Amino acid sequence: MSIIFLNLHLFMTQNEDTICAIITPPGIGAVSVIRVSGPKAIEIGNKIFFGKSKLKDVASYTIHYGSLEQNIDNVLVSVFRSPNSYTGEDSIEISYHGSSLISKKILELLISNQARLAEPGEFTKRAFLNGKLDLLQAEAVAEIIQSRSDTALFRSKKQLDGFLSKKIDTIKNYLVEAMGLIELELDFVEEDLQFLDKSQLVQKIETIIGHIEEILSTYKTGKYIFDGVNTVIVGRPNVGKSSILNRILKDDRAIVSDIPGTTRDVIKEEIVINGTLFRLYDTAGLRDSNDKIEEEGVKRAKNLISKADLVFFVTDIENSDDRLDKYFRESLDAKTIIKLINKKDLLSVQTLDVEKNSVLVSALTGDGFEDLFEKFNEFIETNKIYTEDSSIISNIRQFNSLKAAVDSLKNAINSLESNQSGEFVALDMRKAINHMKELTGEITSDDVLNAIFSKFCIGK
Amino acid sequence: MSIIFLNLHLFMTQNEDTICAIITPPGIGAVSVIRVSGPKAIEIGNKIFFGKSKLKDVASYTIHYGSLEQNIDNVLVSVFRSPNSYTGEDSIEISYHGSSLISKKILELLISNQARLAEPGEFTKRAFLNGKLDLLQAEAVAEIIQSRSDTALFRSKKQLDGFLSKKIDTIKNYLVEAMGLIELELDFVEEDLQFLDKSQLVQKIETIIGHIEEILSTYKTGKYIFDGVNTVIVGRPNVGKSSILNRILKDDRAIVSDIPGTTRDVIKEEIVINGTLFRLYDTAGLRDSNDKIEEEGVKRAKNLISKADLVFFVTDIENSDDRLDKYFRESLDAKTIIKLINKKDLLSVQTLDVEKNSVLVSALTGDGFEDLFEKFNEFIETNKIYTEDSSIISNIRQFNSLKAAVDSLKNAINSLESNQSGEFVALDMRKAINHMKELTGEITSDDVLNAIFSKFCIGK
Repeated sequence: MSIIFLNLHLFMTQNEDTICAIITPPGIGAVSVIRVSGPKAIEIGNKIFFGKSKLKDVASYTIHYGSLEQNIDNVLVSVFRSPNSYTGEDSIEISYHGSSLISKKILELLISNQARLAEPGEFTKRAFLNGKLDLLQAEAVAEIIQSRSDTALFRSKKQLDGFLSKKIDTIKNYLVEAMGLIELELDFVEEDLQFLDKSQLVQKIETIIGHIEEILSTYKTGKYIFDGVNTVIVGRPNVGKSSILNRILKDDRAIVSDIPGTTRDVIKEEIVINGTLFRLYDTAGLRDSNDKIEEEGVKRAKNLISKADLVFFVTDIENSDDRLDKYFRESLDAKTIIKLINKKDLLSVQTLDVEKNSVLVSALTGDGFEDLFEKFNEFIETNKIYTEDSSIISNIRQFNSLKAAVDSLKNAINSLESNQSGEFVALDMRKAINHMKELTGEITSDDVLNAIFSKFCIGK
Repeated sequence: MSIIFLNLHLFMTQNEDTICAIITPPGIGAVSVIRVSGPKAIEIGNKIFFGKSKLKDVASYTIHYGSLEQNIDNVLVSVFRSPNSYTGEDSIEISYHGSSLISKKILELLISNQARLAEPGEFTKRAFLNGKLDLLQAEAVAEIIQSRSDTALFRSKKQLDGFLSKKIDTIKNYLVEAMGLIELELDFVEEDLQFLDKSQLVQKIETIIGHIEEILSTYKTGKYIFDGVNTVIVGRPNVGKSSILNRILKDDRAIVSDIPGTTRDVIKEEIVINGTLFRLYDTAGLRDSNDKIEEEGVKRAKNLISKADLVFFVTDIENSDDRLDKYFRESLDAKTIIKLINKKDLLSVQTLDVEKNSVLVSALTGDGFEDLFEKFNEFIETNKIYTEDSSIISNIRQFNSLKAAVDSLKNAINSLESNQSGEFVALDMRKAINHMKELTGEITSDDVLNAIFSKFCIGK
């Protein structure tokens, strides 16, 4: 079993290295910043930096102007002393003129002074190992940086602030409490649990399962928030899919023409509606085609539909509901499908009975698009994407840990109800507690840590 | 005349604005930084930042951890009080998680609190207007950020440190001294200059002209250092131009094939040799061609040759010196031309008398490339690209100011020698002094300032 306890990490020697990396985005800019972190950070800074004061003598959280060895650049150096730094270690941050050449020279200078290049996520990993962040908060750091919508930013910021961690801790404490009862019983009774009220314990565990499942149920919402809502626009050729996309985006990204089959490539655009990120895919005209390239496009469209969260199925006034439409409507039934009836402008009398979940629009005039946007909002509401006061999980790791905890707890209930040995119940309870601890990183494995932090960018 | 005096700027109201901009490169990264500068910088920071201390109470050059209004992000804020900041004004720098969404939100927050977005170069412009940098140093800031080679970085860093400014000041002081003599004479003599030794004054001015011309002569070297050396590889089709380029670059950037006319596009690569940037252009095979696209390529090649600093003219062992070779050799005569005789590997006996400035190479085996690189080094040496202890000018503005100063001084000498009125001499001397002052920005016009700072990136 590859699970080891966190406190082992704290006494491991791996953090004796002093690491360095550019922490600002790559490229040319007015200012770039290199962070140096580790036991020798200030010693190295002291050696290569020349200002009014020696860095080794200055106070934490102060900034110093001076030059670097070899006169590489004039810089500002910020000093952070352990434990009050991002990583929890001694750190310095060097601000310099943002040229990639200077970046290279400063990194070379640091490396020749016994620092080494940081791996992706290594600063945050050290922050985690030094107890500055739990694992949920560390994941939130990456999500904050990647966030593309207000909702994603709001949520990941909440997670960084420990909102989810606190909830998990509360549940874990309930579990520890229940576990305490079981262990107490085991201490006194040789083999079997002889509870005053076994059903009360079962109820206790069921309540806990309820709490966890409530969080588990937010997984899909979390996916919508952090990854965006995959929205696919499908329909026969020439019904106006690209024009509808353009109306939504209010620009000219997709090529629109009168020749059926123009939009061969899947076009991906992103739009934020009410703080929620929708990823829009305009698919190739869906039909049987002799054209090899278009065939490939149709194949990709069908593939996209299978991964879609929301489908806009476009028909038009003139050729509504032919055989192909029927086919797609049926094959899409499991999805949230909005039927868009385009070319409203061709209606002489502006009346048409539209079915539920259908919107009558005109990509030409823009008529009906308010109703269309209302459909986006309905999706947001139905999926509770902006519910402020609940805890949301944001990735499959979090989902799996919680799911495993629920499974263990269900096993514990089974054991209790089938009057199995108390040891079995205790074992399942312990597993559940450990899965909760995995979630926050109280218990963790190197594999899990590597998987999490390798996804970070360099410098984080 | 659009020249106004610097001290006017200091009393102008334009700097009452508080400005803000992202100062780190654009894009996603661990950390981005926004600078706020101006009289209200700390007041605004104090209002939107919540940490242990109020920003208005903290010392200059200290860093503070806390959160921003609307809980946008957890940030570090650095405080710099006037006059000890980059701009010379009160400034704060906000470090936050480097997401473009957070950037946007923080900028919006600042703008809603009476800051405005900084224009390109506006921070450095304020540094200049507040006397933190002279104009030569301000230009050096932009050059440091753009520097692509060690030499360029070394030179621009020297210029930022005031190396050129000091030299200009010294010359300006000589001029002021000479001017003093003339004015003294004018005070005493009603109309004409009656010097004890007019020829001594002429000599003095000639010495000054010599100093300025010495700096002027570095313009070409400066161009090589800061813009790179334009190096063009020309020759008939199929002599191995692309293979030679690849050997030089040691990669596979250019497409190499046996079909004459393969390299239709001009390929631009950059290589740094001994700290000097060479921009390499591999041109289309030069010949008359019926192929429209190749014709266009040849046209572009001829155009490039006209702008080249260094030309590698490639022939091969088999077809050396035909009519076309002769044509190009003649038309290229004014340039620094190195003749590369390729396909040395085809020689059975490895002897061939090569002319001066010719190198025998084999792109196939790599034979002879050390001699070729020696030619790059000779170019560096001949053009004094790495002369450490002279002052180098880096752009046409600097060249023009110095040239104008020389012209005025030559006029002054003419007036002296033709016994014209002392007023004329004094006028020319004054012009020369003003041109020197323009160079460092003691005297400047809004047009010049705008031209200089608009070339900067946002945030600088």
